[in-house]
Amino acid sequence: MAEEQSRTEISKLGEFGLIERLTKNIQLQNPSTLKGVGDDAAVIDNNDFLTVVSTDMLVEGIHFDLMYTPLKHLGYKSVVVNLSDIYAMNAIPKQIVISIAMSNRFSVEALEELYEGIYAACKYYSVDLVGGDTSASNKGLIISVTAIGQGEKDKIVYRNGAQVGDLICITGNVGAAYLGLQILEREKQLYLDNPKIQPNLEEQVYLVGRQLKPEARKDVIEMFAQNNLIPTAMIDVSDGIASDLMHICKQSGVGAFLEESGVPIHPDAQMQAINFRLDPITCALSGGEDYELLFTINPKDIDKIKYLPDIYIAGEIVPAEDGVKLHTKGGNIHDITAQGWQHFK
Amino acid sequence: MAEEQSRTEISKLGEFGLIERLTKNIQLQNPSTLKGVGDDAAVIDNNDFLTVVSTDMLVEGIHFDLMYTPLKHLGYKSVVVNLSDIYAMNAIPKQIVISIAMSNRFSVEALEELYEGIYAACKYYSVDLVGGDTSASNKGLIISVTAIGQGEKDKIVYRNGAQVGDLICITGNVGAAYLGLQILEREKQLYLDNPKIQPNLEEQVYLVGRQLKPEARKDVIEMFAQNNLIPTAMIDVSDGIASDLMHICKQSGVGAFLEESGVPIHPDAQMQAINFRLDPITCALSGGEDYELLFTINPKDIDKIKYLPDIYIAGEIVPAEDGVKLHTKGGNIHDITAQGWQHFK
Repeated sequence: MAEEQSRTEISKLGEFGLIERLTKNIQLQNPSTLKGVGDDAAVIDNNDFLTVVSTDMLVEGIHFDLMYTPLKHLGYKSVVVNLSDIYAMNAIPKQIVISIAMSNRFSVEALEELYEGIYAACKYYSVDLVGGDTSASNKGLIISVTAIGQGEKDKIVYRNGAQVGDLICITGNVGAAYLGLQILEREKQLYLDNPKIQPNLEEQVYLVGRQLKPEARKDVIEMFAQNNLIPTAMIDVSDGIASDLMHICKQSGVGAFLEESGVPIHPDAQMQAINFRLDPITCALSGGEDYELLFTINPKDIDKIKYLPDIYIAGEIVPAEDGVKLHTKGGNIHDITAQGWQHFK
Repeated sequence: MAEEQSRTEISKLGEFGLIERLTKNIQLQNPSTLKGVGDDAAVIDNNDFLTVVSTDMLVEGIHFDLMYTPLKHLGYKSVVVNLSDIYAMNAIPKQIVISIAMSNRFSVEALEELYEGIYAACKYYSVDLVGGDTSASNKGLIISVTAIGQGEKDKIVYRNGAQVGDLICITGNVGAAYLGLQILEREKQLYLDNPKIQPNLEEQVYLVGRQLKPEARKDVIEMFAQNNLIPTAMIDVSDGIASDLMHICKQSGVGAFLEESGVPIHPDAQMQAINFRLDPITCALSGGEDYELLFTINPKDIDKIKYLPDIYIAGEIVPAEDGVKLHTKGGNIHDITAQGWQHFK
């Protein structure tokens, strides 16, 4: 009989606790490794340039549902979410490698559709697909993408550079992708209850589009270069700005004071949240998958961004002891809390 | 009703046909992409050095069986198989990123065991784990590893450089990993038929070890550097030397004449093949997972390898029209054929 061993459920630690536990003893061995685990991407020294590397895995039934996700969109999105991590380092993605495992319910034509989306993203973002692995799986579809980018030595932006007094900026509205997902889930349930009902997504085309076909903010990174702006810290909004702002604060050793009125929410998202009896600001803070950039700048750089339509100033970095707070429109001040995925709950 | 569409089963194309179909229209956009799909690894120009990138996915039930694969060994092997691809470019792996998806039957302690193996491999090969992604899966364990290495501009070795007259070399015995797998599968069946029977693997420790804990030939790449030897073409033996030699021949536009007597087979593998009523040379040619290096050299370089105990000369490169042939010990000449995985059959 096997000896009794202690068993800790993954759900007990949560995503961030798990990563912390698995990576806390890493000792880097190569001088070329400038940054390992703990940012949007790893950073490798190549003398002239820096190489920036990020990876993400998308699992059917966890990250996407093929009942309402067209394979072409899925291919596109699986590339975009990785490129977004490279841009979040203020670097330019150049190459990707993709590994795919799929069960035999997928045909060659289905895979070609998936790849059509992958190639469309490669073309739009000027990235080369340079390698990969295809394999069978016993169940479902799994897509793993690694993106490789190039950055300049003095321009890479980490999560840990935010200073007290810096302005907190965001590149677009948040919460819409989450509400798009809620719509798709609702229509799926209606369809499962009565397959004769056709889904009606016409009126919510913006929200559903934010969920199914997100874009990475390549344009913003190019604008930073044109305007000679280097943020002090940056992250892409994948888990929700609450969670992502916490990462910046934790790694920079600072706090944050976020203005609810400064957090951009699309009118459709505002309306849809209310229809679902959800609080719009909660959707905006905790929704995730918006792939906007959340960054901080030194206030002396404010002239470089203030007339840019795509940049919203949403708050200020404060000392760590002041915590991470939200100042609501109603005049209340709340603590902001963050969690990673809770897939195991 | 959905329109009828044509459906091609993945099994009909096989691995290489599928990759060919999905990647045939790739148009590279970045001048820094020196080599895309089609070798052991992609090659990226970074001015001073080349960055070499390879990726592999391991899926439970397809690539490994946790009934007889200790998690620590699995972690170790998942790193090694990727490093092997980097060495096969005559480059040095420096960093890896790992994405893992697992169902909630895995505990945190189980994951820690897996990571123990990952870190052991990192330490042994002086590689840094610099990033990754952990996620839930609905079923099973999936591990995706991307390895990043550094190469010198004049020393990268591709699959396409073999010339007529070159010698075909191999760095160690082949077929043992495949026979190790057959032993593990047999013991698993015996156990499933009668759980009271304890597996007896003591006598086959070498073969089982080749399957469960392979090593990448870092030492050989270091030896090449010491001896100023640059192979003309190289590949690592993952699918079996038949298949891997075919890749070199196809990409170099040449044929090959392989001597059965030159293909190294370990005495334990020889014996075990006969026990299983298998042909030892078939196991050696088609077995796979040995992670030795198969390479070709210009015959003028023979003095650089001839006293090296780990290098076996197994044949010669011939014109394409002569085909890829095996000269058996019995004096017959056979065509060599190759297939990738057949998971979908």
